[in-house]
Amino acid sequence: MRISSIVRRGAQVNSGGLASNFQDRRHDWSQFAARISRLAAGLRGIGVSTGDRVAMLGLNSDRYLEYFFAVPWAGGVFVPINTRLAPPEVVHWMNDSGATVLLIDDNFTAMLPKIQGQLEALKTVVHVGDGAPPEGMLSFEGLIDGAAEMEPLDTGGDEMAGLFYTGGTTGRSKGVMLSHRNLVLNALQFAGEVGFNSASHYLHAPPMFHLANGAATFAVTSMAGASTIIPSFTPLDTLQAIQDNKINIALLVPTMINMTVNHADVGDYDLSSLKDVLFGASPMPDAVLKTALEVIPNAQFHHVYGQTEAAPVMTALPANRMVEAGPLAGKIKSAGLAIPGTEIIIVDEDDNEVPRGTVGEICGRGENVMLGYWNQPELTAETLRNGWLHTGDGGYMDEDGFVYIVDRVKDMIISGGENVYSAEVEDAVHQHASVVECAVIGVPHEKWGEQVHAIVRLTEGAELDEAGLIAHCHDWIANYKCPRSVSFTVEPLPLSGAGKILKAELRKPYWQGHEKQVN
Amino acid sequence: MRISSIVRRGAQVNSGGLASNFQDRRHDWSQFAARISRLAAGLRGIGVSTGDRVAMLGLNSDRYLEYFFAVPWAGGVFVPINTRLAPPEVVHWMNDSGATVLLIDDNFTAMLPKIQGQLEALKTVVHVGDGAPPEGMLSFEGLIDGAAEMEPLDTGGDEMAGLFYTGGTTGRSKGVMLSHRNLVLNALQFAGEVGFNSASHYLHAPPMFHLANGAATFAVTSMAGASTIIPSFTPLDTLQAIQDNKINIALLVPTMINMTVNHADVGDYDLSSLKDVLFGASPMPDAVLKTALEVIPNAQFHHVYGQTEAAPVMTALPANRMVEAGPLAGKIKSAGLAIPGTEIIIVDEDDNEVPRGTVGEICGRGENVMLGYWNQPELTAETLRNGWLHTGDGGYMDEDGFVYIVDRVKDMIISGGENVYSAEVEDAVHQHASVVECAVIGVPHEKWGEQVHAIVRLTEGAELDEAGLIAHCHDWIANYKCPRSVSFTVEPLPLSGAGKILKAELRKPYWQGHEKQVN
Repeated sequence: MRISSIVRRGAQVNSGGLASNFQDRRHDWSQFAARISRLAAGLRGIGVSTGDRVAMLGLNSDRYLEYFFAVPWAGGVFVPINTRLAPPEVVHWMNDSGATVLLIDDNFTAMLPKIQGQLEALKTVVHVGDGAPPEGMLSFEGLIDGAAEMEPLDTGGDEMAGLFYTGGTTGRSKGVMLSHRNLVLNALQFAGEVGFNSASHYLHAPPMFHLANGAATFAVTSMAGASTIIPSFTPLDTLQAIQDNKINIALLVPTMINMTVNHADVGDYDLSSLKDVLFGASPMPDAVLKTALEVIPNAQFHHVYGQTEAAPVMTALPANRMVEAGPLAGKIKSAGLAIPGTEIIIVDEDDNEVPRGTVGEICGRGENVMLGYWNQPELTAETLRNGWLHTGDGGYMDEDGFVYIVDRVKDMIISGGENVYSAEVEDAVHQHASVVECAVIGVPHEKWGEQVHAIVRLTEGAELDEAGLIAHCHDWIANYKCPRSVSFTVEPLPLSGAGKILKAELRKPYWQGHEKQVN
Repeated sequence: MRISSIVRRGAQVNSGGLASNFQDRRHDWSQFAARISRLAAGLRGIGVSTGDRVAMLGLNSDRYLEYFFAVPWAGGVFVPINTRLAPPEVVHWMNDSGATVLLIDDNFTAMLPKIQGQLEALKTVVHVGDGAPPEGMLSFEGLIDGAAEMEPLDTGGDEMAGLFYTGGTTGRSKGVMLSHRNLVLNALQFAGEVGFNSASHYLHAPPMFHLANGAATFAVTSMAGASTIIPSFTPLDTLQAIQDNKINIALLVPTMINMTVNHADVGDYDLSSLKDVLFGASPMPDAVLKTALEVIPNAQFHHVYGQTEAAPVMTALPANRMVEAGPLAGKIKSAGLAIPGTEIIIVDEDDNEVPRGTVGEICGRGENVMLGYWNQPELTAETLRNGWLHTGDGGYMDEDGFVYIVDRVKDMIISGGENVYSAEVEDAVHQHASVVECAVIGVPHEKWGEQVHAIVRLTEGAELDEAGLIAHCHDWIANYKCPRSVSFTVEPLPLSGAGKILKAELRKPYWQGHEKQVN
């Protein structure tokens, strides 16, 4: 399996069909493939050799999409950089990966002079934009214009195609090495599972540097479908793009769905084209799902679960299970079943499979599982021990094989010897109509070890106090799970690039001077 | 990717659902997996070691299905044997593969005493049947009863899982080595393309030893679907099984479809459950397709194309293209597009890609392509040269990427310097209402090299002579393509196990004493 094959096939079977659409630029599959081939030749021309890392720092664009295919076409390895990183973090990713080329767009060029001297391996900077490039940079379009098409390099199979960093916002980033096979196989698995096909028109609203969107990127292109791209997620841009382009499939993390379906103007947009909404990365609060089902009436909702280390999809809930009544009900809170081609088991601390219904660590196996962590053999061996990817996610499997994510193992709160899963508490808090956002964390407690604490943002003008919210929770969950304390905030909670609430940041002030790791 | 993973996942996600159904035996996925695991342990117990070949000679059954999964579970390699072979050919396959174990059913045990002394590597014979096994044989059920479940052996990826012989009826058989990855990947590709899913109920009517049915075997099981099995194809058994079991997906070669939809009693059966009919292996005459579309009104017809060496599927025609009118018409004669994950090109004799519309040899690339031919490194190198599988099939690709099979390269007739594709001539002959079966071959001609000759079976009582049939053909195809001679037969034409007409056999009497190879 080769990433270049995806592009060649797409150009063969859908040459005149839309491949990419961004602002005022549209490329059909024939043009898309030709640009990728020439960009690959341009990269070779500036010295990119087989296995070289080529980093990208930019917002979403059609050029970002081309980057994902041109770099492996040239035999290189793409390294998409989180756009929310602070400059020292960018330096760390660049130096850790040893990237020799950096592609950067106008949103980030101002950062470059501050860090360029620290980028040890960097040889060439390519400006991803229009017009003359800033001094010292090459032009993305110039690379394409100046090159003839080339045959793709003969790389594929288990050779590395991409290096995706995870945990970048916590300072403990590690590079996940994904092979051609990892990514192409998972694209086929994902496409088969949620129904990407040649008629799919996908909206790239989540950040393209993140593999949640990457999964859809490789799935829609492997089916020779169409991509419309917005620079970054906003609820209104998303609504507008869906309406204007008759988008029929989108992947959005729950926080994005929340912001979109609860937007004051949502009723002004025609969302009838949208047939499939994929969500994952974090659990969807019941109330959000309920609104989403009302607001996007023609859509099937697919809950998918995975992580970068699995390239990324591991489980999916069949859309016909996303129902609250009837013979197929009862699984709506599940992340679904192992996708065909991947095995899932739940294990205890000694790596023994636990009985159905028992919470343990979710493990996965299949050729979608990463090659390992870049330059971290010990962490790789630990994470892939016994041939299984240990996800760090806590969950259980029911008698029917459905997987339920309860928490990141590290987000689990241990209070008075009881395990409390923050996601379950957050679900209860979200049932209150005045709650906009919520994160539940463990904070230090002398007697219990940890105490359940909720951080909550309310709707404007809402009147709800700590005692009221705790009382509300008692209606939904067991006493020992209920928050013992609540802090209210008017600021949006801090999010990662993937739209996950950064609990490590929220925990930090509470745990200063204590021993517990907050990451 | 491992074949055992398919079974473990199926038992996890659909434990109580039907896995296999044969005569009076039904096993749910939990039972199916347990039997496979114990059969694997039984095979290990009789000395099967990792990499050992385990042959099977039998008609279709649930036990045949279990065999396909138990052998790789035990680390072994399955070798399904064509049931139409003459005893010397069985000896050749057994000795060439070096199979140490032979599973054999009651239909073939009588052959064994005649050949057993010649089977050089054979150590153990297992009787696939009920009751006490014949003397000197072990019992299939006894192996299962006597063993406890075992963990699958840790084989997978590019390790060999199966050895499929092709060309067995011509005496030039060669073993195609297929890996776990070849088979599992192609199952996912095939399932995604034609819509196998967990609700699929597939009818095993074609012979299970052939990889055309094997493709469906691995696809339906990888989706945790259901299998109903009949011992061998007959039109009435097929009709009865579809009706009784509400079969919703079937794969049939065109000769089988022809015999089924034109059966006198077809109107007595309820075929409304049948939603997807997959066909391939040889072109479908227009008249047959037309009747099939009328007789099975709820079905979508999917033309798929491949060969054993590609594990096997390479192209598929989207079902919405199987139409004779409307904007999607015009592709009905095509074998479709390269399936996602596989590349297709058409090359000339020097391996250069030919322009669209030009006939050449169809080549494929992807991780569904075989490891090679067993013990035939030169033939392997020749067939896989330049990294592409050379199929031996002649065809062309249109501007939209659709592939058209014109003939086996070796079935092409060269007459007076013109290439004549036998399939095209056969299509013309089939347009005559009195024609039941037809094969067009080249026979020696002093001046033209070859002459186009048709061998035809007519409907009972039909009055049509050579001149009349040749005149009919002039209405459909160019003069140089029309048969110059016709022989009429009342016997059915000889078929391979896959239902293909054995043209080599038909050619043989005409070419005796001439130099041309007839295979």
